[in-house]
Amino acid sequence: MQVDTSPGAITRIPGYRAAGVACGLKQSGQLDLALVVSDHPAMAAGAFTTNAFRAAPVLYDEALLVRRQAPPIRAVVINAGNANACTGEAGLHDAERMARLTEDALGLPRDTVLIMSTGVIGHRLPMDKVEQGIRAAVQSLSPSGGAAAARAIITTDLVPKEAFARVDTANCRFSIGGMAKGSGMIHPTLARPRSASKLPHPHATMLSLIVSDACVSAEVLQDALDQAVALSFNRITVDGDTSTNDTVLLLASGQEKATEIKPNSEAYHLFQTALNEVCISLAKQIARDGEGATRLVEVTVRGAVSDSEAERAAKAVATSPLVKTAIFGADPNWGRILAAVGRSGAQVDPQRAKLWLGPIQLVSAGTPLNFDVNSAREVLRQSEVVICVDLGLASGEATVWTCDLSYKYIEINAEYHT
Amino acid sequence: MQVDTSPGAITRIPGYRAAGVACGLKQSGQLDLALVVSDHPAMAAGAFTTNAFRAAPVLYDEALLVRRQAPPIRAVVINAGNANACTGEAGLHDAERMARLTEDALGLPRDTVLIMSTGVIGHRLPMDKVEQGIRAAVQSLSPSGGAAAARAIITTDLVPKEAFARVDTANCRFSIGGMAKGSGMIHPTLARPRSASKLPHPHATMLSLIVSDACVSAEVLQDALDQAVALSFNRITVDGDTSTNDTVLLLASGQEKATEIKPNSEAYHLFQTALNEVCISLAKQIARDGEGATRLVEVTVRGAVSDSEAERAAKAVATSPLVKTAIFGADPNWGRILAAVGRSGAQVDPQRAKLWLGPIQLVSAGTPLNFDVNSAREVLRQSEVVICVDLGLASGEATVWTCDLSYKYIEINAEYHT
Repeated sequence: MQVDTSPGAITRIPGYRAAGVACGLKQSGQLDLALVVSDHPAMAAGAFTTNAFRAAPVLYDEALLVRRQAPPIRAVVINAGNANACTGEAGLHDAERMARLTEDALGLPRDTVLIMSTGVIGHRLPMDKVEQGIRAAVQSLSPSGGAAAARAIITTDLVPKEAFARVDTANCRFSIGGMAKGSGMIHPTLARPRSASKLPHPHATMLSLIVSDACVSAEVLQDALDQAVALSFNRITVDGDTSTNDTVLLLASGQEKATEIKPNSEAYHLFQTALNEVCISLAKQIARDGEGATRLVEVTVRGAVSDSEAERAAKAVATSPLVKTAIFGADPNWGRILAAVGRSGAQVDPQRAKLWLGPIQLVSAGTPLNFDVNSAREVLRQSEVVICVDLGLASGEATVWTCDLSYKYIEINAEYHT
Repeated sequence: MQVDTSPGAITRIPGYRAAGVACGLKQSGQLDLALVVSDHPAMAAGAFTTNAFRAAPVLYDEALLVRRQAPPIRAVVINAGNANACTGEAGLHDAERMARLTEDALGLPRDTVLIMSTGVIGHRLPMDKVEQGIRAAVQSLSPSGGAAAARAIITTDLVPKEAFARVDTANCRFSIGGMAKGSGMIHPTLARPRSASKLPHPHATMLSLIVSDACVSAEVLQDALDQAVALSFNRITVDGDTSTNDTVLLLASGQEKATEIKPNSEAYHLFQTALNEVCISLAKQIARDGEGATRLVEVTVRGAVSDSEAERAAKAVATSPLVKTAIFGADPNWGRILAAVGRSGAQVDPQRAKLWLGPIQLVSAGTPLNFDVNSAREVLRQSEVVICVDLGLASGEATVWTCDLSYKYIEINAEYHT
C-alpha cells in the first residue's frame, strides 16, 4: 500500500479541519498549539503510555474514552512546550480546563474534546497562553491546516511527521491521515485505555493523531489501533526512555458510510493494513529523526521461538549504546550485536546464530565469516541500515526501528536545561 | 570496614604470587597477560555472565568448577586484548590449551588452573603469543607482582582497580584482596556456575579475581560470593550492555587455619562483610572509570514494595541516557529521573514519590518543590553524585552505581574499529 508522507495529511481526509498557532509556550515563538476538528461526531480509540507517572492529559483522555460507550469526539487540542506532567491535582484541573476551553470556543458539548501535551515536565501549564492559543486556533481552522498542525506539535524534532493512505476499491472506500511528533525520550510502550497489562519492554514523548472518514464502531477501531500500535509505535526506540505523555489517538468520522468496517471482512483487512502502514510510516519517521540521528536503523530478528522473543532480542540490539555508536562510526562490529541479542533473555543457541548487515552475511553458526570489511562499512554509511539476525530456532520474527547514537545526542541532552 | 585501594592488593595476601607481562595481544605493547598463583591448593568459587553467547573461557571455568567436588585450584591466567568469544569449537580448544600451557609451565596437575579473557570478540586467540606470555609470566612471578597483574588485565580502562581488606580480631583473622577490570560493555548479570536462573536485569566485560587466605569450604565460598556479587558487580552499569565474558573468581587458600569460616558464625559474618566491601569497592571503581565518565553516580531507590523492585527502578535510572546526559550537563532534570522510575515496571504511586539530589530535596508527592537550581547544579558538578528516590510504599531498597554519558563515550565507541 502506498503511503504519502507529504505535508497536510490530516486535512486530506474530508470533514476534518485543522490549525497550528503560536501562543508563547515555546520560547522560540514557533507554532506550539494544534487543533484538529471533525465536522462530524467521530468514534475514538486511544493508546497511552504505561509509564507509572502518567501526565494529566493522559489521565484525562483515558477517563473520557473509558467512561463513554460510543464517544462522539469532535476535536483534539495539542500543545507543545509543556507536558503538564508531574503537576499533581492542579495539573489535572488544567487538563480539564484545556478541554473545556476548546469545547466552549467551538460551541461543542462537554466531553467531546481530547487533549495531548508534550514538553518540559513539572511545570504548570500557563493557562492564559493556552486559552489565547485555543481562541486563535479556532479562528484559523482551515480545511488545509493539516501541515500547520503537524508543525505545531513538534519539540526537539527537526521535521514534522505525516502520513496518508487511501483505499478505493470496488467495495471499499476510506482514507486515513496521521501526524506524529517525537525525537527524544522515545521508547513508547502504549496500551489501550485502562489496560492493566504492561507490555514487556517499557520505554519519549511521542504523540500521534490519526483521523479517518471510515465507518467503524469504537470497539473495532480500538482493536485495529491496538494491532497497529503493536507493530509500529511500540517497535521504535531512540534512547530507551519511555515518556510520561506518550499518546496515540485515532478518530473515525464514519462519513464513508457505504463501507462499514466490520470484523473479519475484506474491508477490515484493508482498514487494518492501511492503518498499520500509516502508523509504521509515522513510527519510522520518528526513529529517523531521533535526537542526533544520522541514520535510520532497522533491526529484524527472525528464527526466534516466538514473535515476542524476537521483539525482545531486536529491542536489545536497538537500545544498545555500543551497537548504536558502532553504526555512527560505520564499524561492522557484529560482536556487539550478538552480545546484545545474548543479553536479551531470548532463547539462543549460539551455534545456530546468523547475522547480516544489509545484503552481507557476517556470521554463521555463531562465528564470523570472512567478509569484506570495506563493503560492510559501506552498508553502514547509508542513510538506512538494515541488521538481520536469524536465531535458527523457530519462526518467531519481529522488526524494530531505531537510529544511531552520535555526538549530537550528547549535545542536545546535556545542554538542554530545565 | 576499611578497604584499601592502593596497588598490589592480590599479593598482599600471604601465599599468593603474581605477574603481569606483555606478549603482544594488545597492539599498544602494554601488559596483556596476568598470572596469579596460590602456593597452596585453594577452594574456588565463580560467577559468570548470563549472556547466551558465553565466551570459551567462561564455558571452560564453569565446567571445571561444576565438575569438581572440592577443586584445589592453584592458579588463574588472564589475557587482555582478545575475548576468545564467538570463536566456536576452535575457541574452546584454545581455552583449554591456555589452561594446559599454564599447568605445564608451573608443573601443576591438570585441572588446577582457571582462565579469563577480555578484548575483541570473534578472533581466534594467537596461541603462540599466549604461550610465550605464559612462560614469561611464570618467570616473573613475584610476591609483589599484584600491581603488574592488575595493570595487565585492563582494556579501555584508564586505571587498574584493586581492593584489600583485613580482619584481625581476637577470634578471627584473614585477608581478602581483589583486582578487577571493566570500562565498557558493563552491566554484569552474573550467576553461579550452571545456574539456570537468569537475573531480572541482564547487561561489558568485567573481570575480577579475588583471593583470600581464609579457611572456608567451596560451598560456603560460593554462597558468600553469590551474595557479594548481588550487592556489587550486579549493581553497576556503564552502558546497559552485558558482555559475553563477565567473570568473577574467588580463591581461598585456607592458610589462616585458626579461623574456619562456618555458616552462621561470627567469622562468616565478618568474611561476608569484608568480601562485600572488597567487591563493592571494585564495582564502584569500574563505574567511576566507565567509558567517557566524568562522574560516579550512586542511585538509591527506597520505599519500594521489595528490594528487587527497588533494584529494578534504580537500574532504570542508572541506564537512562537522558538521566546520564543531564548529569554530564549538570542539569537537575528530576523529570527524567522520575520518568525512568515510572517506566521500570516497579510499583509506583506518583503522589508518594520523593526525590533528592545529594542533600537537596527536589520532589515531594510526585511534584516539584521550590528548590535552588544553582545549588542543585553544584551537587551535579561534584565527582560523586548521589540520587535518591523514595517511593513511599514499603521498605524495599537498593543502591546501584553508574557514570554520566559524555561526548568521550561516543568518541571511544564510534572510533574504535574492529
